[in-house]
Amino acid sequence: MHTQHTILTIAGSDSGGGAGIQADLRTFAALGNYGTSAITALTAQNTQGVQAVHGVPPAFVQQQIQSVLDDFDVHAIKTGMLFNADNTRATVEALKTHFSGRTMPPLVCDPVCVSTSGHSLLAPEAIQVLIHELLPLTTLITPNKSEAELLLSRSITSLEDMLEATKDLIRLGPKAVLLKGGHITAKLSDLGRLLSAHPEARVVRDGMYGDKMEILAVNGPQFEYLVVDVLREADDSVTVLARPRIDSSSTHGTGCTLSAALASALADGNTLSEAVMKATAFTHLGIATAYTNLGSGQGPLNHLHSVAQLSVPPRTPGNPYPFTKLLITGSAAIWKEYVEHEFVQLLGKGTLPRASFVQFIVQDYHYLKYYARAYSLLAAKSPSFSRIGSATQTIGHILREIETHRAFCGEFGVSTDELESTPESAATTAYGCYLMDIGIQGDATKLLMALLACLLGYGEVGLWLKASASWVILEGNPYRRWIEDYSGAEHQAAVRAGLETIEEAAASNPPSPGLLAEWRAVWDRCTKLETAFWDSALHLKN
Amino acid sequence: MHTQHTILTIAGSDSGGGAGIQADLRTFAALGNYGTSAITALTAQNTQGVQAVHGVPPAFVQQQIQSVLDDFDVHAIKTGMLFNADNTRATVEALKTHFSGRTMPPLVCDPVCVSTSGHSLLAPEAIQVLIHELLPLTTLITPNKSEAELLLSRSITSLEDMLEATKDLIRLGPKAVLLKGGHITAKLSDLGRLLSAHPEARVVRDGMYGDKMEILAVNGPQFEYLVVDVLREADDSVTVLARPRIDSSSTHGTGCTLSAALASALADGNTLSEAVMKATAFTHLGIATAYTNLGSGQGPLNHLHSVAQLSVPPRTPGNPYPFTKLLITGSAAIWKEYVEHEFVQLLGKGTLPRASFVQFIVQDYHYLKYYARAYSLLAAKSPSFSRIGSATQTIGHILREIETHRAFCGEFGVSTDELESTPESAATTAYGCYLMDIGIQGDATKLLMALLACLLGYGEVGLWLKASASWVILEGNPYRRWIEDYSGAEHQAAVRAGLETIEEAAASNPPSPGLLAEWRAVWDRCTKLETAFWDSALHLKN
Repeated sequence: MHTQHTILTIAGSDSGGGAGIQADLRTFAALGNYGTSAITALTAQNTQGVQAVHGVPPAFVQQQIQSVLDDFDVHAIKTGMLFNADNTRATVEALKTHFSGRTMPPLVCDPVCVSTSGHSLLAPEAIQVLIHELLPLTTLITPNKSEAELLLSRSITSLEDMLEATKDLIRLGPKAVLLKGGHITAKLSDLGRLLSAHPEARVVRDGMYGDKMEILAVNGPQFEYLVVDVLREADDSVTVLARPRIDSSSTHGTGCTLSAALASALADGNTLSEAVMKATAFTHLGIATAYTNLGSGQGPLNHLHSVAQLSVPPRTPGNPYPFTKLLITGSAAIWKEYVEHEFVQLLGKGTLPRASFVQFIVQDYHYLKYYARAYSLLAAKSPSFSRIGSATQTIGHILREIETHRAFCGEFGVSTDELESTPESAATTAYGCYLMDIGIQGDATKLLMALLACLLGYGEVGLWLKASASWVILEGNPYRRWIEDYSGAEHQAAVRAGLETIEEAAASNPPSPGLLAEWRAVWDRCTKLETAFWDSALHLKN
Repeated sequence: MHTQHTILTIAGSDSGGGAGIQADLRTFAALGNYGTSAITALTAQNTQGVQAVHGVPPAFVQQQIQSVLDDFDVHAIKTGMLFNADNTRATVEALKTHFSGRTMPPLVCDPVCVSTSGHSLLAPEAIQVLIHELLPLTTLITPNKSEAELLLSRSITSLEDMLEATKDLIRLGPKAVLLKGGHITAKLSDLGRLLSAHPEARVVRDGMYGDKMEILAVNGPQFEYLVVDVLREADDSVTVLARPRIDSSSTHGTGCTLSAALASALADGNTLSEAVMKATAFTHLGIATAYTNLGSGQGPLNHLHSVAQLSVPPRTPGNPYPFTKLLITGSAAIWKEYVEHEFVQLLGKGTLPRASFVQFIVQDYHYLKYYARAYSLLAAKSPSFSRIGSATQTIGHILREIETHRAFCGEFGVSTDELESTPESAATTAYGCYLMDIGIQGDATKLLMALLACLLGYGEVGLWLKASASWVILEGNPYRRWIEDYSGAEHQAAVRAGLETIEEAAASNPPSPGLLAEWRAVWDRCTKLETAFWDSALHLKN
């Protein structure tokens, strides 16, 4: 399981939600981390552009950072749009004050100067403050082409220029630099040229197959252009990351997303190069899977491609059986038809016709043979000795249960020979063979879904009859022993164990909506087969 | 699939991330929706309290709202902390201007007055503006006890008071009111008394069993106290929602989270009462599953209990086989051992000893019997005619493949009788029986994992040998036909179909990390069994 880490972003706010702290916080959440924020400036912004900016006073920027750092254990920090020289200084001051004499967590500096839509987001005089005061504290700086050009006062137009620029950028003070190549046109041949001139560079190709993955290769003109990013680390090692360029207008907030994903990966304890690989892949997928109906301009990335809605709520003390509850409430009407069946009600009143009870008990005897075989199949499908043990323990219970059935039958004048020779009813065959078919079709969990409608339903019936004292007659009821068996300790313990097994199965391998639908279908089918079983006995159908 | 909707929150910013727009945006994301925001005030805040507040100028509040509404198709709006009278007016102004002559989406007003930590968040003069100008636009207002008391200028201490208060709150102008009972102590008996005096009220019990769910009931002193919320709608219908009270200090941002979840559910098209049920359940679970290591005061809720990290990236044009790529790169070393095996290299060069090739082809013949049986089992486990069809089509391919094997054997001096009577090697039995065991243990997808290492690996070997012209000798190579068979159109088409099936299986039922680990284990085992199979032939082991 992923451990949640806390991250602080110091950046601007984007009302449109695609960039700024909004993109950062969404990225942290998508990656399973907790985000805090200090806002340097508000923008009234949408996918078409920036309509207005409201700078936050430097003292308030500093106060926000302090409030977060004083209370939270922060595992990584990122800076985005710092707006002006004063807010850049306020940021540096807040960090230096808090971390004086303490180790500062990794700091990712995204030197945001201009928005995707072309709006200037950093006052020119702030650049020198950023270089002289913030970069020396920085673990990783993540400029794009124009930001690197501004920082170095020279133009960068080729992959070779990029590699050279990372050398000079690292001299400005950060421990490492990731120069982003999104705005530089490169082809596979350009990459080849760069790598043959720089054999020392490590290369990471993402979405570009090779190395014994020929069968997965994709080709086509759309894969001709690449995005190449260059990472240079403190030891001067260079990693070149290449992936196919995506032709997309959903790129609003790409830089924010990347630097947030970097901070998140560093908070999780990844090395710089691992963090860069994960964060660039995350960002690339954010563009590739973006919703295109958000705003009419440069739309935001999809930050949530890495998560899915859960189909089953978590187990909590107040709701320890959320999965079973979902199954039962999901088809409450058919569950009620089953557990409140007329057969059950007549049985509770002691007025069920004797012939119906005999038919039930005889058919149940046949059904239990299927049921024992299905549990044997469950044992054969079980991955551990404990699961094999609990399945065979249930078979043991069933073998004892049939003794009770034989005794019952004796009381009701049916000999064991007669019991054995009575043919199965259609309801018994349908239910029994359905269990076996599910056992062949699916895995152990799916078979459990089929087996539990019987276990849990009889447990519910037992408790209901026991609790409904006003109309249920126990004294002199010819079926009293049946009621006491299913409300008794042994069956209720089996119910408890069954609930634990099914909840554990659903919690340890949370089902996707599709799988949940499959499981529900099995549960519902068995619930109906139970009703049919009682119908059959009540109406003496064969 | 859930359709993403856009929501606008107009509220304060909480640097600590647990409340304000940060909680709202995280809630929207957790519920699969897209959030935009207009910030009315910044707070420098953490779990211990509010250290400072910076109000945003009213014109800038208005501009942010306008920027969002001008560009996005907003499906619901919520207001939280509006800070003061001017910003409340600016909010009303912006909404009225934009929606003049247009239908406004549902508006949830959370009348935030005081923070969980006790800090005042709304200037007193703003309350009248809220009542007279904002409430008439409001779909649902969500006050807690003290906010309702402030709005009505009277005290509320019992469930009866709450029910009465909702009548007067709705007279203030909103279409509906949800009065939250988190700060009112109630027991099951209080709820009973309320409901017998108000039989017209609909009651929703969450996490409180009953109604044919006796087997799921939980009891204990911790379930003695309830939280009761009351919803009154425009038609005067009343819904009383009750759930067990959670004793927790992770309640920072509860109100923000609830109103955000309400806006999200309304954006999705739920009715008011559905939205209230979903949003209160979401918020309750946020408290129940909160991380308790965030800050030293009243910690934030967990907003992400409803999502899980995906184990497999989405399919994109640049990465159409993400799941297979994950399998192959996840155990790249053993995959490479398999597809670049010495046996394969000698075969490519034409220098593989004849005896090794004969042993291989004879054992492969035996293996293919298992393989055909395993595909038959796959057909038996298949849920649709098309999947049954594709499994049996593969069996057809195998039956043709054994003809090739017989012909090969003839060329190499092995008669069909000899072929049939040669015993299986240990490597063949191990691999063949492993396929059958996985087939018995698991479902169709797990069996596919076992079957594909062979299909895909031979496809990779074929392509690799075909492509590596410099050292592979085709002319005069005694094994040329083998190379051409596996690099040829028929086998490559089967590879393509296999890839589609496996990717479709993983995408339609995304595996949890636990299930992915099971699948990986099967894939890795088969990859190693393939290597052992070639080892066995190369070294003539039986």
